[in-house]
Amino acid sequence: MASGKDETQPFERRLRMGMIGGGRDSFIGAVHRQAATLDGSVELVAGALSSTPERSRRSAQEVYIPEQRAYGTWEEMLEHESALPPAERLDFVSILTPNYLHYPIAKAFVEAGFHVILDKPMVLNSEEANDLARAVEEAGVVLAVTYNYTGYPLVKQARHLVKTGQVGEIRKVVLEYSQGWLRTKLEDTGHKQAVWRADPSQAGIGGAIGDIGSHAEHMVSTVTGLEIEELCADLTTFLPGRLLDDDANVLLHFTNGARGILTASQICTRQENNLSIHVWGSEGGLEWYQEHPNHLRFYPADGPLQVMSRGSSYLCEAAKRATHIPAGHPEGFVEAFANIYRNATDTMRARLRGIEPTELELDFPDVYAGARGVFFIEKVVESSKSGSKWTPAQWKRG
Amino acid sequence: MASGKDETQPFERRLRMGMIGGGRDSFIGAVHRQAATLDGSVELVAGALSSTPERSRRSAQEVYIPEQRAYGTWEEMLEHESALPPAERLDFVSILTPNYLHYPIAKAFVEAGFHVILDKPMVLNSEEANDLARAVEEAGVVLAVTYNYTGYPLVKQARHLVKTGQVGEIRKVVLEYSQGWLRTKLEDTGHKQAVWRADPSQAGIGGAIGDIGSHAEHMVSTVTGLEIEELCADLTTFLPGRLLDDDANVLLHFTNGARGILTASQICTRQENNLSIHVWGSEGGLEWYQEHPNHLRFYPADGPLQVMSRGSSYLCEAAKRATHIPAGHPEGFVEAFANIYRNATDTMRARLRGIEPTELELDFPDVYAGARGVFFIEKVVESSKSGSKWTPAQWKRG
Amino acid sequence: MASGKDETQPFERRLRMGMIGGGRDSFIGAVHRQAATLDGSVELVAGALSSTPERSRRSAQEVYIPEQRAYGTWEEMLEHESALPPAERLDFVSILTPNYLHYPIAKAFVEAGFHVILDKPMVLNSEEANDLARAVEEAGVVLAVTYNYTGYPLVKQARHLVKTGQVGEIRKVVLEYSQGWLRTKLEDTGHKQAVWRADPSQAGIGGAIGDIGSHAEHMVSTVTGLEIEELCADLTTFLPGRLLDDDANVLLHFTNGARGILTASQICTRQENNLSIHVWGSEGGLEWYQEHPNHLRFYPADGPLQVMSRGSSYLCEAAKRATHIPAGHPEGFVEAFANIYRNATDTMRARLRGIEPTELELDFPDVYAGARGVFFIEKVVESSKSGSKWTPAQWKRG
Amino acid sequence: MASGKDETQPFERRLRMGMIGGGRDSFIGAVHRQAATLDGSVELVAGALSSTPERSRRSAQEVYIPEQRAYGTWEEMLEHESALPPAERLDFVSILTPNYLHYPIAKAFVEAGFHVILDKPMVLNSEEANDLARAVEEAGVVLAVTYNYTGYPLVKQARHLVKTGQVGEIRKVVLEYSQGWLRTKLEDTGHKQAVWRADPSQAGIGGAIGDIGSHAEHMVSTVTGLEIEELCADLTTFLPGRLLDDDANVLLHFTNGARGILTASQICTRQENNLSIHVWGSEGGLEWYQEHPNHLRFYPADGPLQVMSRGSSYLCEAAKRATHIPAGHPEGFVEAFANIYRNATDTMRARLRGIEPTELELDFPDVYAGARGVFFIEKVVESSKSGSKWTPAQWKRG
Repeated sequence: MASGKDETQPFERRLRMGMIGGGRDSFIGAVHRQAATLDGSVELVAGALSSTPERSRRSAQEVYIPEQRAYGTWEEMLEHESALPPAERLDFVSILTPNYLHYPIAKAFVEAGFHVILDKPMVLNSEEANDLARAVEEAGVVLAVTYNYTGYPLVKQARHLVKTGQVGEIRKVVLEYSQGWLRTKLEDTGHKQAVWRADPSQAGIGGAIGDIGSHAEHMVSTVTGLEIEELCADLTTFLPGRLLDDDANVLLHFTNGARGILTASQICTRQENNLSIHVWGSEGGLEWYQEHPNHLRFYPADGPLQVMSRGSSYLCEAAKRATHIPAGHPEGFVEAFANIYRNATDTMRARLRGIEPTELELDFPDVYAGARGVFFIEKVVESSKSGSKWTPAQWKRG
Repeated sequence: MASGKDETQPFERRLRMGMIGGGRDSFIGAVHRQAATLDGSVELVAGALSSTPERSRRSAQEVYIPEQRAYGTWEEMLEHESALPPAERLDFVSILTPNYLHYPIAKAFVEAGFHVILDKPMVLNSEEANDLARAVEEAGVVLAVTYNYTGYPLVKQARHLVKTGQVGEIRKVVLEYSQGWLRTKLEDTGHKQAVWRADPSQAGIGGAIGDIGSHAEHMVSTVTGLEIEELCADLTTFLPGRLLDDDANVLLHFTNGARGILTASQICTRQENNLSIHVWGSEGGLEWYQEHPNHLRFYPADGPLQVMSRGSSYLCEAAKRATHIPAGHPEGFVEAFANIYRNATDTMRARLRGIEPTELELDFPDVYAGARGVFFIEKVVESSKSGSKWTPAQWKRG
Repeated sequence: MASGKDETQPFERRLRMGMIGGGRDSFIGAVHRQAATLDGSVELVAGALSSTPERSRRSAQEVYIPEQRAYGTWEEMLEHESALPPAERLDFVSILTPNYLHYPIAKAFVEAGFHVILDKPMVLNSEEANDLARAVEEAGVVLAVTYNYTGYPLVKQARHLVKTGQVGEIRKVVLEYSQGWLRTKLEDTGHKQAVWRADPSQAGIGGAIGDIGSHAEHMVSTVTGLEIEELCADLTTFLPGRLLDDDANVLLHFTNGARGILTASQICTRQENNLSIHVWGSEGGLEWYQEHPNHLRFYPADGPLQVMSRGSSYLCEAAKRATHIPAGHPEGFVEAFANIYRNATDTMRARLRGIEPTELELDFPDVYAGARGVFFIEKVVESSKSGSKWTPAQWKRG
Repeated sequence: MASGKDETQPFERRLRMGMIGGGRDSFIGAVHRQAATLDGSVELVAGALSSTPERSRRSAQEVYIPEQRAYGTWEEMLEHESALPPAERLDFVSILTPNYLHYPIAKAFVEAGFHVILDKPMVLNSEEANDLARAVEEAGVVLAVTYNYTGYPLVKQARHLVKTGQVGEIRKVVLEYSQGWLRTKLEDTGHKQAVWRADPSQAGIGGAIGDIGSHAEHMVSTVTGLEIEELCADLTTFLPGRLLDDDANVLLHFTNGARGILTASQICTRQENNLSIHVWGSEGGLEWYQEHPNHLRFYPADGPLQVMSRGSSYLCEAAKRATHIPAGHPEGFVEAFANIYRNATDTMRARLRGIEPTELELDFPDVYAGARGVFFIEKVVESSKSGSKWTPAQWKRG
């Protein structure tokens, strides 16, 4: 088997992580735990994992959180952890509750000086987003948003090809994100994740556009560096009685003149998690598919299609750093997710050491990426409500 | 090698074909000749192949058209052939000139009682389309439009799965047609096919939307049977000085409530001829890719993805009839094109015998499909000019 | 649609073709007719298509062969055509009978001065092969063997990459040819093509190894230019009562020290026509799959996998000449088959003009390739009968 | 995002793991750590990670092993851990040293009553294998061999389709394992993993056949349940001066009459880790590719190819248990590796609880699988040395 160097820098101790949400029956809780601890440099030591104190403690036990740090509520966690001496206190918390709780919890921990890792969409609206961004700036903490799909090494390579001019001036972007799991009214069966996502008071104003469309927005912003100038959206709800959109189609105008099309849907029967991005520039093209994440298709204007492969020597530094094992040994969703953690926690470690994090370490979605995502959802909903009018959608720091 | 039955019914003689346009340097001329004669039941006996009499005659010689039927102009062909006794006269003509000549030539031959095969888009506008349809009705001749991509057997199978309810109620359609050959201003280099396509007086009001978007419209209409109710379009011209669109993005509302998105572009660097259709219904999904035409992906709501393969016993009758050689022996573009000819000329043979053509024989794009395509282009252009307003686009016989 | 130049040189007339075998119910008869006439420069004017005079004449009628040249037997055809004046006489005959008739028919026509196109395997044994080669040399006619799979443009490109050193010294070759159509005893159902292939007196000593293994041998010889030094074979018959092998596994030693493995089987359930070649050299690797023939995978030792695409400007001359329509418009089995005809008949045309055919025109499998294929089958059978002993298998002109 | 249930049963504490080998620069060390701890139910608490005491301690520090359990040698670890009270003592050790150390270390720990997880090939020869098997039987401990590729859920599904008769009687198996990383003499550059693999005193008698061919043997045995009766092998060393084979081609006869072909090579330029298995039976066929592990291709004799997808409801229990996150969220190498740990450690937990492990828990490669693999390598080498004689190779418990 070919060699793969573990490039993680040693640190004198593991970072101490607390988790809010992500208890039993939560798919994403297990993912965050695996992602955070994948390379062994983070330990989960505290949690307020579920919506009731009793369930929280039971969930904590199942994941071997010591009893004294198995909190009943996030408020309890905040109070107790804040009171601990720095040598014991949590380094950061990960927040994976339904969307509507992101803002109050994140703000409270940020203001108490904890670093924070947050699920997307970051908060419910731009007002919350801007307020949270201000709080982060004031507290000087690290806040990362788990737009996990940009953690894939080949996505970083795609961004690199654009940045280094190999694609030329970008003219056209096609974004597709198709799922089928809400083809029926799963929320009526009590399916936990479907239930809160279907409830505007918990999920916010976006259905498919919030849950997966926001990933697509972050993907295009990351890979191309382009800014959306205006958009024209058509949201649909196919299942009778469903309150939020389950299908979104959006035309995009970017500030450089590029055109785009984004389709995000959760009613595409038997589609699993089919996110793809296609970028066409004056000098080349790119295609990447989340379900086959270890390869990137690059079309130079002259010469054959090149299929770039994770773990190869010709990839950019950021892609190499995001690689855990050698080429041909498939990496997947968890490793990409872990890359958000790796860079965010390496940035925390730099702060703890009192040094500047490097550009490679700072390569994770921050509070501004989170704010831009929330703004995007708002503008899509606004355009759709207007009967698909072109709606200005250029994001600026609040 | 496995057996493949030639199901063509014998006919007492080959049909006599004349060709207008399609001379030297024409890619599509060779395709039509190959498609028409693939199974040996048509012979090319006359032509007016190029834009000048001299070039026409030289082109005719190259394709072994006898000198006496190597006409200098289509008018000459019409006059001489009309004067021939029925036993010698052409059975049909194929018209593959630049778009603006389709209408006058087709109408003249139709009125003279010849069957006609026409390239797409059929004519320049709905007025011409409706007039041509009336002429066809009055003359009682066969007119086929070479929307060749619906000639593929797996497209017929896709249509079959929809018709027989295996996809359920259709909710979402994604259409993509990406090419890259107009990424630069090829028309400025004298490239013949680029030149006329870039000239509105020859090509009509549609650039990419006319040249390839119209194929996508015919594809979705054929496979789904749905009707477009309204559309919201965004046409762009990327190359400075180009007069027609080279990129089209269109949102679609179908009359049954389904949503769609169509992107057609000729500036997608190194994309070759990437037409695909994705259909998502309440009970299943479908995907088909023109560049891999021998397979169809069918997603039943329960159970694994099925990859259907050309030449298989489980396919529908129309797909089987459209199959020339056994599974695993790849068929391509020419065979699909030939299937339009096969059904159109079998319909002509039925007429010549005085019998009713079967439903399988009548399975080719007719003058109404051609008219609907022209109408679609008009509506897309209208919506785009209005600033992407939703524009009613339900086609009705004129 | 992008332009595709028809590079065929005009010739004053179509070549006159006669066909022996390939009547009704013959899959390969239709393929030869399509392949021969695809670009319009050959016309089928005579035939002895079936095994009885009556069926021959009926078959001839179905493919519009004039009655006076619809012969009852090949002997009749030979006699009558030999007597015709040169301006009317056949230019060449295509022989697609069961294998055991190849030798007598081909030899007779060769000796009478006709050019010949022959299905593979060329003849039943090396004695016949050497004798036929001598007859061809003496008569000075063109003889082509339809190893059609090497007619694909990307196979020619693979050969080019090897020849130009881009693969380096070849070390390893993997050849796979899997079909499933003989998974059951199809020959017991009366299936015509299965019947004669299962009968050693008609098919010769090879079952799967003769029918498809010989294609694999020609593929590896063509692409790599290597010579087999010795082989170690294991033939199996899975279906009780079947007289010939239906599965073949062969280890190969090439004279340059390269190693190879060849598996050919007709009992691989639901495999259609899955021929692939994989070549691994010191500087690069190659992969090509017959069922996806428009692309070639090239692995340079440094840098990403390159996927070469038919119709691209970077391909070699032989690949370009073998291309009929632009990239993205899939070509398939028939076009590859037609390329054997194109080069063989262009060579005939050169001879008719009294000029030397070019290297590009001479690029078709000749009588020596046919002889090598027959020798290969003999050696595989010999090795298998010996209990898989390594058996010297270097072919030399007889 | 769709829900994925964490099916791990809670246990009162994490299992305590010690690691021998796998220090800095070891790719496989990181993999074992990630695999063991992926679901959070194992903690790494002790290690003797490198070949010198100093490097061992430095490596241990980097992976946060407490100083007092950072042993200098495995003998030191054995002595100290054996002396600890059961409540602190290691539950199991993982051994990832070069092959020649597997036997002495594993035997010592087994005899001391520790459970053991061992890299493959298990030991150097059948004598060691049989002796180790006896030791395991006597000690009553769990011994698992990390044939990690059979940990993939779709491999378990393949096995299920065979077991439940959906493939029918198996006739043919094709196994391919191609890598390119030893295309040059990497061992001469000091590359650590290449160095010991190239040294027979450390690696044993097999080069490619031992390193990766043994994985292929375990794959075919697991999926098909067939036993190899005899084999005919051809081992080659391409790089001058290399002492072990870098290319292996093997013909297989199974006891049920099935035929097989196995090719394993490490000189296939730019091939990464291309392991695949193809199984053809009387009623169906199967194909699985390690580099695309989330899908399984199943060819029923009637009906279309089915592409089965990880995480789907139609999969067997063992496949479901081996699934960590929902369909469409790609899993890879680490998850498959973790599945070996999951089942082996669940079996240990059952033993700790004094209950019988279930069949699902016992689903991991045991000492007999390890012994069979060692025997296979011996027989391949024996056949190759004999000039590719058919060599009896049916394994029986020693």
